[in-house]
Amino acid sequence: MPTPLQTALSRIDQLGRISDSPSFLVRTFLSPANLTAARLTRQWMEDLGMQVSHAPDGTVRGILAGSDSSAPPLLLGSHIDTVIDAGKYDGALGIIAALAALEGILAEKFTLPFPVHLLAFSDEEGTRFQTTYLGSRSIIGPLDQKTLQAKDSHGITLAAAIAQEGWHGDSVPIRYSPGECRGYIELHIEQGRVLEEGAEPACVVSGIAGQSRLSIILTGRADHAGTTPMALRHDALTGAAECILAAESLARLQPPLVITVGKIQIHPGASNSIPQSAAFTIDLRHPLDSLRESALAELHRSFSEISAQRRLTLDWLPVQDNPAIPCDPTLTKKLLQSLTVITGSSALIPSGAGHDGVILSKICPIAMLFIRCRDGLSHHPDEYASPEDIGCGIEILTHFLKSQKL
Amino acid sequence: MPTPLQTALSRIDQLGRISDSPSFLVRTFLSPANLTAARLTRQWMEDLGMQVSHAPDGTVRGILAGSDSSAPPLLLGSHIDTVIDAGKYDGALGIIAALAALEGILAEKFTLPFPVHLLAFSDEEGTRFQTTYLGSRSIIGPLDQKTLQAKDSHGITLAAAIAQEGWHGDSVPIRYSPGECRGYIELHIEQGRVLEEGAEPACVVSGIAGQSRLSIILTGRADHAGTTPMALRHDALTGAAECILAAESLARLQPPLVITVGKIQIHPGASNSIPQSAAFTIDLRHPLDSLRESALAELHRSFSEISAQRRLTLDWLPVQDNPAIPCDPTLTKKLLQSLTVITGSSALIPSGAGHDGVILSKICPIAMLFIRCRDGLSHHPDEYASPEDIGCGIEILTHFLKSQKL
Repeated sequence: MPTPLQTALSRIDQLGRISDSPSFLVRTFLSPANLTAARLTRQWMEDLGMQVSHAPDGTVRGILAGSDSSAPPLLLGSHIDTVIDAGKYDGALGIIAALAALEGILAEKFTLPFPVHLLAFSDEEGTRFQTTYLGSRSIIGPLDQKTLQAKDSHGITLAAAIAQEGWHGDSVPIRYSPGECRGYIELHIEQGRVLEEGAEPACVVSGIAGQSRLSIILTGRADHAGTTPMALRHDALTGAAECILAAESLARLQPPLVITVGKIQIHPGASNSIPQSAAFTIDLRHPLDSLRESALAELHRSFSEISAQRRLTLDWLPVQDNPAIPCDPTLTKKLLQSLTVITGSSALIPSGAGHDGVILSKICPIAMLFIRCRDGLSHHPDEYASPEDIGCGIEILTHFLKSQKL
Repeated sequence: MPTPLQTALSRIDQLGRISDSPSFLVRTFLSPANLTAARLTRQWMEDLGMQVSHAPDGTVRGILAGSDSSAPPLLLGSHIDTVIDAGKYDGALGIIAALAALEGILAEKFTLPFPVHLLAFSDEEGTRFQTTYLGSRSIIGPLDQKTLQAKDSHGITLAAAIAQEGWHGDSVPIRYSPGECRGYIELHIEQGRVLEEGAEPACVVSGIAGQSRLSIILTGRADHAGTTPMALRHDALTGAAECILAAESLARLQPPLVITVGKIQIHPGASNSIPQSAAFTIDLRHPLDSLRESALAELHRSFSEISAQRRLTLDWLPVQDNPAIPCDPTLTKKLLQSLTVITGSSALIPSGAGHDGVILSKICPIAMLFIRCRDGLSHHPDEYASPEDIGCGIEILTHFLKSQKL
């Protein structure tokens, strides 16, 4: 008889083999592999004695009754979709680890005082429709018309995909109202290197960082690289270089602020021409909105000064502002207590990446547990979390579940 | 009766209308417009009583006899080809201004003691075959096989183009041996803004700067922009930004050194990914080879330090090294004397761009005169030099020619 951890490890491999491509792992919203993965997850839930429902958009839910079936349920979950050429831990591990924790609890004949609803969301990555959190958004209310009319690369709308490719076998809808649940807990790989650098197997998440995205364009003038003395130049690229370093310095001084320039394009882009314009992106994240906003203002001031001094024109174009989603202090404190009991650590870090908790936070308190992943690597076939760390995550989750009172 | 300056201005317009395209100015090696321009130039030379020859590659030469026909000739010249969507002064002005100077001298019944050979080179820009100085290279010796096998965008080799499209009417080849000529003088628009900033109509050129071209690749690691704290990053772009500013600082401290980063490409190039690699070009020019080489060494040291400190890999890939071509001190001094007589200035600047003098310097002393051009603009339809400045250039050339002794 395998242990719950052994079962979990084998399930990660099983799910990791369910792909729409023979050569790499990919399961997008309502794809054949995504539906196969959902059916397998549903089977695992049923094997545990859960009452299962399956939403038209492919999200699967298993309900484990508690001693008080009318008590507000605790939600556990993660997503079964993947990016293209994905690793097998991102998303899948959260569902499989929750199953393992519940299996262990049931094996001990321990009865939780409240129902647990385990959710396997059909879409978090948004790979097919270039829109995120479809699964979790669907369980808190109907998707808006704009989202429903989004098209995939074949021109199929999201609405048509759900109507034609979705699951229509169950009549029980999966939907929650604000205040209906006692909380949402998600275990996920860190997708970063903080745990690895700190030699910690796991940590609790303080919140999901707010994110500002901007597009910056600096414009100077194109001149001949040979005939224009340095003092007469209006070089957009040297201006951009100064801005990039100013952004880096600002972020280094204010951890956990992170600022990234991930894209840059210059015009005309010839080795013997002084760049006339440089267009680059800014991705700025901080777990506290007030500090994110003050960092943005400081960056704007700094870019304006650099442009003025270099006689460049600055276009400062905000693209997106996502506020931070703090995790719930009470739930987070309880999860931290379980972390400390199991690992001795009280590591609490912000998540720089988004997760389904962003959506769930609109209807209930949320808390998250991160598991160390090798080299911080994610969204890549070499993504890896060790059996020891996964076992540790399952233990923390188990301890947390068992210590919850009504 | 128009003055030589009036004739020159009208000729600039005339040549500027001879184009292979109805919508912009372009005359590439042996193109119909290039040959038409050559025939017109030949006509102007003949009108001045010059003895004309026409090389198979389209270069035209007019010889004006001097009082001593056996004396080593003085070469004057520039090129009649253009880049695509060119201005009408680059190249053409050098030939037309020389014609105007000679016309004025002849009108005064002044006889120069030596023959003057005026050369209108068929190719300097190298637009058609991606190779430069074809006209001047052809007059100092046969083109090498590699150059003759170069193909244009239609797959026609340079050798085939000369055989099929070239001029085969004259039997007199145009070719010079080292030591045969007393010097080569070229008047050209500056193609930069030094004269304009200094409010000078013209200046003499100290030499043509040496140029080093390099390709630099910095490699770090791609990480998630949200989950990787600043301290754990190996960001290739922030490293490149530091290198770009180091290059700028170095050049600013050592004028007339110029360093340009004109191209940069980063990978993966997504707004939420930390750049794994940044590849950029370096174009470094200085009129003194020893200082160009020491600047290169200093740049290499600086890039190595930046890469080491940021835990990036540095690939330092030299692409090309062209030594500086100093102008001849004696000829340059004489040209400066004429500049001073006409304008009161003794401005001497290096040329950051290449010119036919680079090739002519292999067989005789060279000197160059620059004329101010508006806003430093060149290789552009808005290229412009004022009638006053052109007149000034013709006067300097005239004074120089008349003051030469045998």
